[in-house]
Amino acid sequence: MRDRLPVILVNLKLYEQSIGQKAFEIGKAAESVWKESGVLIGIAPNALDAATLAEKLEIPIFVQHVDSTPFGAFTGHISPLQLKKYGIAGSLVNHSEKRLKLSDISWINQKLVEEGLISIICASTPKETLSVALLQPTSVAIEPPELIGTGIPVSKARPETVTETLDLVRSFAPDVKVLCGAGISTGEDVEKAIELGTDGVLLASAVAKHPNPRKKLMELANGALKASDACSKR
Amino acid sequence: MRDRLPVILVNLKLYEQSIGQKAFEIGKAAESVWKESGVLIGIAPNALDAATLAEKLEIPIFVQHVDSTPFGAFTGHISPLQLKKYGIAGSLVNHSEKRLKLSDISWINQKLVEEGLISIICASTPKETLSVALLQPTSVAIEPPELIGTGIPVSKARPETVTETLDLVRSFAPDVKVLCGAGISTGEDVEKAIELGTDGVLLASAVAKHPNPRKKLMELANGALKASDACSKR
Amino acid sequence: MRDRLPVILVNLKLYEQSIGQKAFEIGKAAESVWKESGVLIGIAPNALDAATLAEKLEIPIFVQHVDSTPFGAFTGHISPLQLKKYGIAGSLVNHSEKRLKLSDISWINQKLVEEGLISIICASTPKETLSVALLQPTSVAIEPPELIGTGIPVSKARPETVTETLDLVRSFAPDVKVLCGAGISTGEDVEKAIELGTDGVLLASAVAKHPNPRKKLMELANGALKASDACSKR
Amino acid sequence: MRDRLPVILVNLKLYEQSIGQKAFEIGKAAESVWKESGVLIGIAPNALDAATLAEKLEIPIFVQHVDSTPFGAFTGHISPLQLKKYGIAGSLVNHSEKRLKLSDISWINQKLVEEGLISIICASTPKETLSVALLQPTSVAIEPPELIGTGIPVSKARPETVTETLDLVRSFAPDVKVLCGAGISTGEDVEKAIELGTDGVLLASAVAKHPNPRKKLMELANGALKASDACSKR
Repeated sequence: MRDRLPVILVNLKLYEQSIGQKAFEIGKAAESVWKESGVLIGIAPNALDAATLAEKLEIPIFVQHVDSTPFGAFTGHISPLQLKKYGIAGSLVNHSEKRLKLSDISWINQKLVEEGLISIICASTPKETLSVALLQPTSVAIEPPELIGTGIPVSKARPETVTETLDLVRSFAPDVKVLCGAGISTGEDVEKAIELGTDGVLLASAVAKHPNPRKKLMELANGALKASDACSKR
Repeated sequence: MRDRLPVILVNLKLYEQSIGQKAFEIGKAAESVWKESGVLIGIAPNALDAATLAEKLEIPIFVQHVDSTPFGAFTGHISPLQLKKYGIAGSLVNHSEKRLKLSDISWINQKLVEEGLISIICASTPKETLSVALLQPTSVAIEPPELIGTGIPVSKARPETVTETLDLVRSFAPDVKVLCGAGISTGEDVEKAIELGTDGVLLASAVAKHPNPRKKLMELANGALKASDACSKR
Repeated sequence: MRDRLPVILVNLKLYEQSIGQKAFEIGKAAESVWKESGVLIGIAPNALDAATLAEKLEIPIFVQHVDSTPFGAFTGHISPLQLKKYGIAGSLVNHSEKRLKLSDISWINQKLVEEGLISIICASTPKETLSVALLQPTSVAIEPPELIGTGIPVSKARPETVTETLDLVRSFAPDVKVLCGAGISTGEDVEKAIELGTDGVLLASAVAKHPNPRKKLMELANGALKASDACSKR
Repeated sequence: MRDRLPVILVNLKLYEQSIGQKAFEIGKAAESVWKESGVLIGIAPNALDAATLAEKLEIPIFVQHVDSTPFGAFTGHISPLQLKKYGIAGSLVNHSEKRLKLSDISWINQKLVEEGLISIICASTPKETLSVALLQPTSVAIEPPELIGTGIPVSKARPETVTETLDLVRSFAPDVKVLCGAGISTGEDVEKAIELGTDGVLLASAVAKHPNPRKKLMELANGALKASDACSKR
């Protein structure tokens, strides 16, 4: 599963424009762009859409959150242990809009990893990101919360935050992948993020609220391809 | 929608035996028993199963929980505002395994009602149940937590808890329906609950973990029918 | 204790100007104004100041919050069961800056009442306030959150919110006292609140951040006295 | 302040035997044992006792928890920024009975450190302890929750948990001190814990519920002294 960590992960959040049938359409567009460009795109839809998208699409589908609960008498919870049954690829953990207790992050991450699923733990600062990287998830995602939803890309406005995170994680937990997010909205932002050394980006509104998600996704994928070219030429 | 409040509401919780394909099978059995007996049965599956069941079945499907969030930049939340899009009938609110802040109960209930959805607010004691009944949900559900999952039915072990709740709610909020739950597992338990004056029952493991859910559901429906006979003869 | 419900309850919150020695000074001023005017003033200081103020002052001292924990192996919690030992008069419950689960409100309120302490449950809307009034606390406090800290007094800007709350609580729970809060900052605001029929007011910054708390408290007490005069003349 | 990290830190929790006047008596005993033995003992009393103990005693007094709140309009919270005003030495953070969000742990720890206070972050497993050690607190405390309150000392029942934690923290965050806790109740347990390489122990009921706290504290201090002797002879 680890090799299915997307280069571009689209969090559909709870926008009216990105739930239900529209979530499926964005997912379908992502699948098509992946097939055309070769750049793997993942989608994290609302929980009510996750099973449907995972059933109907070939790209990796993530849940936006799982609870720290095993199977049993639990009402209103989603368990990391149930995801595989639906073909769901993994979960975001500790997103800035759903912060968790450290003990829960730790438990959830362990279960996701044991299940062979992709665990992407989000954090706000280089230090916090290092903390969660030490739990050995598939990936961490650094997202300065003050940039989320601003359109000011972390990769351009705070390159030093990204590189500091990369340095720390590479030194102490070299097997853990690093995504960055917050304000990412153009192909150029993606290109910059990958050139800085990240394994990909996490973004939301730029795709989820776009009138033509396929077009936007292709732009983002092209940004990733440019960065790869640049990298391979080095 | 209000007329679609089930007489028997089955909370599938997060049992390994009642998620995914198995949730669908229990739902299918419930639909079949409803068609045969005329007793309306609702199902509250795990969030990952809710959209699928709501699409494929004619009986009312509930979510086990919704968050106090509108549409927007929210990650890992389910909104009362999105339920109708999926044909979901309503939601449990404040289940004993997912207790909420009063301010959230109040907001969620208001939104469910505004959306024309069924709001079923759970509480532990007659006094607490009265408190939430004053918020004017579709229904309240009294469930003494110490009996949940015990197989000791509230309707038999604590009839006075049920009747005290009924008296309070009928006096102060006469339009609000009253379900009871905790320990309900046989047709006789359902019969007793309805004879006490409730509008139905909330149960979980007796159906969710039963090797033959259809048989168990038919037994429960028959209990409801007996009580109705008894009531209509009065 | 019930007869010690203050007419003016000052929540000192966590302002730098109202903790430590300054909390004591505000409390001392309140005591002096009470002795001069006869209008009972209560103080709800930060937890770290509560024991000291309760020991040194004769006016009723409240904690701003208690947890739903009995005595035992609990770390970082304050129990309603420990308050009497310190001579603390009671607690605010469910303040808008510390919203609680309904099940916790219910438990805490029951324990406070059993201990003979003053339980003041806060809520945002008339409906929610009625809900908590049904739990039979000493008092409820209606505080529209959008007015808190604005200086726009609920008693003037939203008299109908106050009177609707009064009507509901008086109809369904006539023994429960009613305070109102949010934006209260002058003697006139207090006068108006009491004329509307409330038993007193809850306020914070107008006193806690005032350069001369005694002067401000005397103004507020005079507002209360004017209203009482008006009432007694009817 | 860092040099005031206690070798023995007694969490008084919320036992009826260790609040109010009794908290003061235990603190007084700890002070006396420290003066006699030279082994520094800290006390973490209930919030309502913290200011009094910090005022009256010379040993370091800790709060059991602080919230992630600055000064301002916050009700029912304790801020790391207010502690110095009371002479409080620092705070436990993320105790197993008060687990916090990672983002809150991170903020609280940063503020404590900036204030020159002692920050002791608790965690359950070596991996989680390493995670929090990376935040650079004064100290971490490893406490396997399944041993807390059992009387089965972590230092004897799980020496490998302690040494694994020590190895990880010493490798990645060598400036961070390491305490261990859970089940510590005798001088021998303390001796063993220090011999394993920890900087001290965290314990609760063995002292808090003891009929003669001074005697028990002296026994514990003697355990620490024996270990120091052993260490210095190597």
